[in-house]
Amino acid sequence: MTIRIKGLSVTPLSVISDEYGSVLHLLRSDDPAFLGFGECYCSETLPGAVKAWKRHNLQTQCLAVPIGCLRLVVFDNRPSSQTCGVINVIELGRPDSYARVIISPGLWYGFKAIGKSPALIVNCVNRPHHRQESDRLPAYSEVIPYRWDTLGDRC
Amino acid sequence: MTIRIKGLSVTPLSVISDEYGSVLHLLRSDDPAFLGFGECYCSETLPGAVKAWKRHNLQTQCLAVPIGCLRLVVFDNRPSSQTCGVINVIELGRPDSYARVIISPGLWYGFKAIGKSPALIVNCVNRPHHRQESDRLPAYSEVIPYRWDTLGDRC
Repeated sequence: MTIRIKGLSVTPLSVISDEYGSVLHLLRSDDPAFLGFGECYCSETLPGAVKAWKRHNLQTQCLAVPIGCLRLVVFDNRPSSQTCGVINVIELGRPDSYARVIISPGLWYGFKAIGKSPALIVNCVNRPHHRQESDRLPAYSEVIPYRWDTLGDRC
Repeated sequence: MTIRIKGLSVTPLSVISDEYGSVLHLLRSDDPAFLGFGECYCSETLPGAVKAWKRHNLQTQCLAVPIGCLRLVVFDNRPSSQTCGVINVIELGRPDSYARVIISPGLWYGFKAIGKSPALIVNCVNRPHHRQESDRLPAYSEVIPYRWDTLGDRC
């Protein structure tokens, strides 16, 4: 997976497992990636369902997928960005792709649960949710050059 | 469920569901329950497994169970506490018991995954983890008057 969009980062995270289960890190306040705490919530997506598209204008997303598998798609159409026009497709989930994804404000993103069980995102955003600071587009909008059904479910 | 221990609270949280899945709130920085952000991590517990006992001396736990079902047991043996000697048993999980649990420093706690699938805790603690500020006891320690196998799995 190559991250090409400026303002998008994917950092593998540690998973500490034993016979009782696993501990999965997400974010610490002393990590350079920490931009402040606004809110923590979970988003569960049912198998095959698409949740898209959303763009935050102020809030930075900081998320991981501790349960299930998810395809995350990010699109940069910021006119002043060096990577304007670029699409990044990232597959997240355990055991091989437990990672922290940071999505800067201004980027469009959406996701689809791949695999046979629901996928759970845990998201620690740096500002509390306010409906006014985000924009939405339908999942199959012509504005974003990505078709959700063109890739097989690999997870 | 009656919460009897001073320094332990359980607050039902909203779950917003549609045909794509659910959004499950945990904590916002403008909530009176917010005591600062130290770290966010997940703890997955396998069916039937017990993770116990732990006591933090400085860190406050702020957790919810968005996946699976968990029995959380909290024991107060703080000599100066009005509720010293009290045990609280709390069953957490969806759809009926999605809640935010706050466990103050000084309380012993442990949990067991009940039901047939792993249970996931998301925990937003107010200080980053440091091994020195917590104590542990074995799950079947005589110090804590609770036996993990005495209750049936109801979830």
